[in-house]
Amino acid sequence: MTSICIDAMGGDFGPQPIIGGVIEALKEVKFEAVLVGDTKILESLVPQNLKQYVKFIQADEVVSMSDGATDALKRKESSIFKAIDLLKNKQTMAVVSAGHSGATMSLATLRVGRLKNVSRPAIATLMPNVTGGNTLVLDVGANVDCRPEHLFQFAIMGEAYAKEILKIKSPKLGLLSNGEESSKGNEATKEAFEMISKLDSFVGNAEGNQVFDGSVDVVICDGFVGNILLKTSEGVADAITKIIKKHVKKSPVAIAGSLLMKKVFKTLKQQVDYDEYGGAPLLGVSGCVIISHGKSTPKAIKNAIFQALKFANSDINKVIEDELSHFAK
Amino acid sequence: MTSICIDAMGGDFGPQPIIGGVIEALKEVKFEAVLVGDTKILESLVPQNLKQYVKFIQADEVVSMSDGATDALKRKESSIFKAIDLLKNKQTMAVVSAGHSGATMSLATLRVGRLKNVSRPAIATLMPNVTGGNTLVLDVGANVDCRPEHLFQFAIMGEAYAKEILKIKSPKLGLLSNGEESSKGNEATKEAFEMISKLDSFVGNAEGNQVFDGSVDVVICDGFVGNILLKTSEGVADAITKIIKKHVKKSPVAIAGSLLMKKVFKTLKQQVDYDEYGGAPLLGVSGCVIISHGKSTPKAIKNAIFQALKFANSDINKVIEDELSHFAK
Repeated sequence: MTSICIDAMGGDFGPQPIIGGVIEALKEVKFEAVLVGDTKILESLVPQNLKQYVKFIQADEVVSMSDGATDALKRKESSIFKAIDLLKNKQTMAVVSAGHSGATMSLATLRVGRLKNVSRPAIATLMPNVTGGNTLVLDVGANVDCRPEHLFQFAIMGEAYAKEILKIKSPKLGLLSNGEESSKGNEATKEAFEMISKLDSFVGNAEGNQVFDGSVDVVICDGFVGNILLKTSEGVADAITKIIKKHVKKSPVAIAGSLLMKKVFKTLKQQVDYDEYGGAPLLGVSGCVIISHGKSTPKAIKNAIFQALKFANSDINKVIEDELSHFAK
Repeated sequence: MTSICIDAMGGDFGPQPIIGGVIEALKEVKFEAVLVGDTKILESLVPQNLKQYVKFIQADEVVSMSDGATDALKRKESSIFKAIDLLKNKQTMAVVSAGHSGATMSLATLRVGRLKNVSRPAIATLMPNVTGGNTLVLDVGANVDCRPEHLFQFAIMGEAYAKEILKIKSPKLGLLSNGEESSKGNEATKEAFEMISKLDSFVGNAEGNQVFDGSVDVVICDGFVGNILLKTSEGVADAITKIIKKHVKKSPVAIAGSLLMKKVFKTLKQQVDYDEYGGAPLLGVSGCVIISHGKSTPKAIKNAIFQALKFANSDINKVIEDELSHFAK
């Protein structure tokens, strides 16, 4: 049985929604759930009939959002430290955490270690696109200043994730830039363009709108730009929703219309719902680490666990190492 | 009477929509419209009763979208070259062009020249936000790789535009970054943060979503990130529209609903309509240059002309120079 370790304490709303997600996941698939945290609380949250699938590991502390990411390295009694150490010691196959993402990243990178030839692990996230499918974007926050070789490594990792986990046979890979032409880009992306051109899946520069139009499967960028892309898209979606709601309220006719369109809005919401993806894999570490949002719902945690199961049972990390060593020659 | 020069040939659809915009503008406000292009065609497009406000200047060539931006410097017979030279020689107070934006920028920067202490002119654009107002974002494409001092100059220019043209008394200025905390940012923005902190209007780092939530009036970024922000926001809005349309089509109930909501969707469209702003001012050159979209409608050109009139009759360039010389001390 695949063992998935869940940092049960790190989320913004405490262990309840996280354990809720574990329970939902266990109802659909059987796996060994290793829950790290205050065992007394955790045991009370897991129903008796599921306990055979659950292992409880005591952790006395929690790394809170106000802590520094590097402080986490000293917090040996924290839930995330213990979870990552279980992965390091091969006592589990994956870690899912909705806690301090910087701490998770630092611990994973420094204690579990990086894959061969990976300089910097990257956070990859799935963005909904107009086809009803998703576009994988990386990096979305781990690496703020990137050199061209880092972007190249992200391309290899993104390509592998698309093939091995998303099961896209011939993924189309784009380099995020300020124009489609190969002459466009900043210093780092122009150099990265040359390097990534060696990959068959590379289709050239991609503009911001191509993340959402389904023309590419994977988009490569540094973590500074990736974060801005993420927040911008959330901001636009949020603004559109608010503007529609504001104007609907003003007119009884529009209120009636919005009721008749309820199903459409619900479908739209589902299609752009981050809960559907569950979490963002940290690619490039020697193991599987899924970073979930601090405000994750049980559904998001369930889906993060499913992602972890797929990842843990795939060859993705071997594929990444093989590809990188091929180009390192 | 204020003289506004319009490059009548540069747009994607030829002179018709551009002259259409000039006519619409002249119906609302009186100014001297200097139209540069194929005078034979242009004269045929302007109604007799408006000709007293129009001056026609012959230009035999057009810089096309496939030409290089720097080639424009040698194309002395092109409409944009002649338009910019009229500005350089103080024969007009502003230039509006829907042509090759790179050519317009190069010509404006090199032939009209930069304001004192401005290293690089920047393109500023207004983005619609949830309040029904706008957020000014600069740079959105002129400068791909920026040093911290360039971002500082953009801040000064953006602040001046907000005060002098948008008439915001105490504008709130944010530096686009990957988090609100002052510790967030890449190498360039972290250094810029320190410099921009000297401005009273600076409220700190702003995240991508803040462009749309009305919490800031001016957002500063380099042209690479600015372009991605622009294209991302267009992409998200477009994807949401397409997803809604696709699902509405599937259900007669939803079709009825969408008809009842027609007015709301129209209002939304108006609120996010780029035609309402008309064009993007090129800030930092010794004159007024408004860059319009190649696909500008007559309405967009009209609004670009109104922007040019406001700009030409303001003290913005003096304010920018005064502020910069204050900090250059």
